[in-house]
Amino acid sequence: MQIIDGKATSLVIQQEIKELVEQRIAQGQKRPHLAAIIVGDNPASRAYVGHKIKACERVGFQSTLVECSDNIQESELLAEVEALNQDDAIDGFIVQLPLPDHIDEQKVLEAVTPTKDVDGFHPVNAGRLSLGLPGFQPATPAGIIELLKRYGIETSGKHAVIIGRSAIVGTPMTLLLSRNAQPGNCTVTMCHSRTQNLAEITRSADILVAAIGRAHFVTKDMVKPGAIVIDVGINRIPDPSKKSGARLTGDVDYDAVAEVAGHITPVPGGVGPMTIAMLLRNTLDASASS
Amino acid sequence: MQIIDGKATSLVIQQEIKELVEQRIAQGQKRPHLAAIIVGDNPASRAYVGHKIKACERVGFQSTLVECSDNIQESELLAEVEALNQDDAIDGFIVQLPLPDHIDEQKVLEAVTPTKDVDGFHPVNAGRLSLGLPGFQPATPAGIIELLKRYGIETSGKHAVIIGRSAIVGTPMTLLLSRNAQPGNCTVTMCHSRTQNLAEITRSADILVAAIGRAHFVTKDMVKPGAIVIDVGINRIPDPSKKSGARLTGDVDYDAVAEVAGHITPVPGGVGPMTIAMLLRNTLDASASS
Repeated sequence: MQIIDGKATSLVIQQEIKELVEQRIAQGQKRPHLAAIIVGDNPASRAYVGHKIKACERVGFQSTLVECSDNIQESELLAEVEALNQDDAIDGFIVQLPLPDHIDEQKVLEAVTPTKDVDGFHPVNAGRLSLGLPGFQPATPAGIIELLKRYGIETSGKHAVIIGRSAIVGTPMTLLLSRNAQPGNCTVTMCHSRTQNLAEITRSADILVAAIGRAHFVTKDMVKPGAIVIDVGINRIPDPSKKSGARLTGDVDYDAVAEVAGHITPVPGGVGPMTIAMLLRNTLDASASS
Repeated sequence: MQIIDGKATSLVIQQEIKELVEQRIAQGQKRPHLAAIIVGDNPASRAYVGHKIKACERVGFQSTLVECSDNIQESELLAEVEALNQDDAIDGFIVQLPLPDHIDEQKVLEAVTPTKDVDGFHPVNAGRLSLGLPGFQPATPAGIIELLKRYGIETSGKHAVIIGRSAIVGTPMTLLLSRNAQPGNCTVTMCHSRTQNLAEITRSADILVAAIGRAHFVTKDMVKPGAIVIDVGINRIPDPSKKSGARLTGDVDYDAVAEVAGHITPVPGGVGPMTIAMLLRNTLDASASS
């Protein structure tokens, strides 16, 4: 069994990006610039955005944080988005989710100009992915593709089973693994809450992607020996041994599944750290084409 | 075994649309107006467009045919598209494919304003479908969903197997059948040329959609008894008994598969006629929201 080390891979990619940025600067090109809009004081959101800003510093990007109060009006937030759309200094930007209930999240995401949409959440980018055209891909599925590539995992003709059909993970993952590319060319089965005989299907998976959001949902008996197991879940479960009284765990019952899997991603340290690397890569691409 | 009669269903839908148009006219609303751009003299393209124009007449739509010569420059064609985008009298329009080799087809399709893109080929509409948002859906998969609905076929929790991963059939079909909707909620397996053990997978299908483009590819031994078999293929094969020396046939070996299938769509008269009904429905929707 081999552990797929997303944390180490993410750092390697960030180092590569840093070197590319230095080359570009040496050639007189512009330093990539990522902006993030954050609304309110949600501690988790603040932590996520903080990680992204720090990663920008690490790779030599410029970064801008636009902080908005919890009671910002939708129209005001849309004006902030439009300001970033218009600002030639900004290559790409994200709107940290979730947004407060009084704001139409979809409306805000669709206001981001697609060429700066480095989260890949705009319908144009979702559509370009679906049509097999170049565009910004959402960080989580793109990070999984990158892990498969860097670990030299053969995917062509393999059976990939995706548990979860969300717009930002399960659905784009299905599209990326099925398309005629390397990695890709999998036969893909998309499973979800209505799926019958789930364990029977997952047992036929050469590549199993768990993106359900339920701690330890994938048990050892659901996994074919030798399978590649990718765990997208980040679930908080009680753990009295921790100061916070809780710890993070994935959708996969890691210790038991690791006994049968060929490759497996841990949580934390698997898919999670790759999302930041993919966000930076999208920003680098946005900068190159702006 | 029940034959799914797409021809009859298409005519029922066209009658429904006709009645809606008459109601709208009676209420002083605008008559829906579909335009089609055709480039060159390809007989098949001319026939397809002719069918669409005739269908418009049947349901009381206005229609406009924009004819361009085979040697039109890309920029001139883009100008024609832009003229239709700007024309408030036109609710929706299509650019009949294929286009001559010297024209970038994707560029032309992306020039169509998404709110008039009644073929559902623009990345915005592909993205909205992928994200589960309302938008114009491509006619073939939308027509199949409509057949499943009108024949009262339960899809929730069923295993759907799609053979083919094209941008206009296989991929959107996968997305529509997997999403949380009725029809929908299928576990979906997407197969293609790289799929191994295809027959084993298709034999597990409760719903089998064949969109490969190879005559009689799906044989009886590939189909589970009682399965719903949807044949998207339109293949021309030699037939000395016909005046033209050829006839149309599907991707399914119909006569043999019909012996085991629970429901089956014939070719011709199955999925094909539904595409016109869906194009008209999209145009009606475009007209209502314009």
